[in-house]
Amino acid sequence: MNARQAPPRTLNVALEERSYPIHIGSQVLGDPAMLRPYLAGRQVLIVTNETVAPLYLASLKQGLGDDLEVRELILPDGEHTKTLASVERIWDALLEAGFNRQCTLVALGGGVIGDMTGYAAACYQRGVAFIQVPTTLLSQVDSSVGGKTGVNHPRGKNMIGAFWQPRAVVIDTATLATLPGRELTAGLAEVIKYALIRDLDFLAWLETHMAALRGLDETSLSEAILRSCATKAEIVAADETEQGVRALLNLGHTFGHAIEAHQGYGYWLHGEAVGAGMHMATLLSRQLGWLAEVEVERVSALLASAGLPLAAPANMDAKAFLERMRLDKKNRDSRIRLVLLRALGDACLHDDTPPALLESFLEGYSRA
Amino acid sequence: MNARQAPPRTLNVALEERSYPIHIGSQVLGDPAMLRPYLAGRQVLIVTNETVAPLYLASLKQGLGDDLEVRELILPDGEHTKTLASVERIWDALLEAGFNRQCTLVALGGGVIGDMTGYAAACYQRGVAFIQVPTTLLSQVDSSVGGKTGVNHPRGKNMIGAFWQPRAVVIDTATLATLPGRELTAGLAEVIKYALIRDLDFLAWLETHMAALRGLDETSLSEAILRSCATKAEIVAADETEQGVRALLNLGHTFGHAIEAHQGYGYWLHGEAVGAGMHMATLLSRQLGWLAEVEVERVSALLASAGLPLAAPANMDAKAFLERMRLDKKNRDSRIRLVLLRALGDACLHDDTPPALLESFLEGYSRA
Repeated sequence: MNARQAPPRTLNVALEERSYPIHIGSQVLGDPAMLRPYLAGRQVLIVTNETVAPLYLASLKQGLGDDLEVRELILPDGEHTKTLASVERIWDALLEAGFNRQCTLVALGGGVIGDMTGYAAACYQRGVAFIQVPTTLLSQVDSSVGGKTGVNHPRGKNMIGAFWQPRAVVIDTATLATLPGRELTAGLAEVIKYALIRDLDFLAWLETHMAALRGLDETSLSEAILRSCATKAEIVAADETEQGVRALLNLGHTFGHAIEAHQGYGYWLHGEAVGAGMHMATLLSRQLGWLAEVEVERVSALLASAGLPLAAPANMDAKAFLERMRLDKKNRDSRIRLVLLRALGDACLHDDTPPALLESFLEGYSRA
Repeated sequence: MNARQAPPRTLNVALEERSYPIHIGSQVLGDPAMLRPYLAGRQVLIVTNETVAPLYLASLKQGLGDDLEVRELILPDGEHTKTLASVERIWDALLEAGFNRQCTLVALGGGVIGDMTGYAAACYQRGVAFIQVPTTLLSQVDSSVGGKTGVNHPRGKNMIGAFWQPRAVVIDTATLATLPGRELTAGLAEVIKYALIRDLDFLAWLETHMAALRGLDETSLSEAILRSCATKAEIVAADETEQGVRALLNLGHTFGHAIEAHQGYGYWLHGEAVGAGMHMATLLSRQLGWLAEVEVERVSALLASAGLPLAAPANMDAKAFLERMRLDKKNRDSRIRLVLLRALGDACLHDDTPPALLESFLEGYSRA
């Protein structure tokens, strides 16, 4: 243990019989106490990717112990692998191993691995246990909390999936030391999102700690992850299957998904697209008269200090945005629903942005 | 209305916020009152197959009305189509149509169509509404109640799937007039199953009404379907995700699935395999000293009067049964769990049949 190392902290996600703990700490990935109590039986399949496996697979296996039947499946890395075909490889591996309903899937990697492994667990024999061990900042603060699992379809992101809760989430902040800087920045977009949605104090904290976060200060990282997960866990507990308030977590995502889909998944990182999307949501909220110019500037400055892009991809015009946005899962019948900011720290769901205003806004933004 | 036509009856499946009605009647398939209240929005995709479409698709569409956006997908018929690839066709159709989360899938057909459509609904945008319109006796009394959805994998039946409840089930007994006799018989296997599991009165009723059922008497059919669905609904309400009592519904299924898998899905009908499997469960219960010889004969006589096979396929020996049975979803770790009969009308879950006894029983049965 070095002086910078924060002690592990635990957060409980309250979902009745589907409640589960999130353990956050440095070098907790190989700690048996973090993993073993959450196994459903003796059969364990670790799903990871070619980037993460050489770094953390051995520690994780050591933490599981040698009295279990542990198998591993190492998939290629990247958003383009987030397909039904990859999930089929997980199902094939489970069936080849003869695993039954008491098996446990462990997702070791970023959001792609977590989403696919969770979906595989949700549908293997109509549902088996899984544990998330997210190794990117984005997955630690976002996709590992809340039970959204799934894969992309050529016509849209996350179009196929299920709500399925993990038995536990184990977040090892030490894994961020091997994360490329661009991905750390992408994760910070989601951290900033929680502050913008409903935590003005956290917004101020981020403004003073952004340098420490980007410098991988473990105490700051642990605090930012805990606060992000706590906010997400509260929202998910209030609305597990996204009937209402949970949709607020999509701040920046309608625009962001449009960017990702238009560029082809994986060219812009999800967090980068969400960063630009939050900038767009802030600008549109300003046009609706809900934010002051100085507030818009405060958000832009914070996004920029995290290293996030503010401008749309050069090849996207208003039409390109609108086409993609019409397929968004939040829409009701043919109305486009957006998450906007009534104020900083106060997001709302809005489905009556006048179409002409939205179009002219998108034209202005994409020309900027 | 003719004299044989029973008035529609409704049964409620009590699953808290996932509760839903089962409507049973003659010629109810085109009745707007049976369908329209359960639609989530204006977008409807009817999934059916090449056999059922020419018979009932037009009536169903008429019942939905012409103020909706109704699409249809007609898949090939048969158990061999119960694959993930078919479910992908449903997802592709939904995405091509640009359907959002407020869409409704309607499954028009037998268990294969119902299971695939239900699974497609469970995972499209992480879950949308669906309505079951089962047109075979088997699906009317079994697969349309209880929320089990899914597809087969080359290594096992129903290995991929989800629990997902329909908004409503509409059972039109008039559709049984076009059902091949062999399939009617297969459906009767599941009807008999409910009697054997926990309804001795119903067993006696079936003994006196088997001829009427096979003669398509609508009053008798309606009664048999209602009693079957009521028993299943009670069991499902007590144990939605099969942690305990719900496993009793698998009477005859461990042996039956082994037969189906070994023969290649579709050669033996599911109900036929379950019929032989129930006969096997009865014989094994007798060997354990739980049933008298006269009770075994009573069951054999009822199964035979429904037209069901009692003998195993000629090409299956004990080893073939055991290999398939080891992959059964009910097993805990490496123990084979069976549903057996403590008495007629009283099924139990049993996982300590001595392996030697089971093997010698299977040897004796497959040689008989």
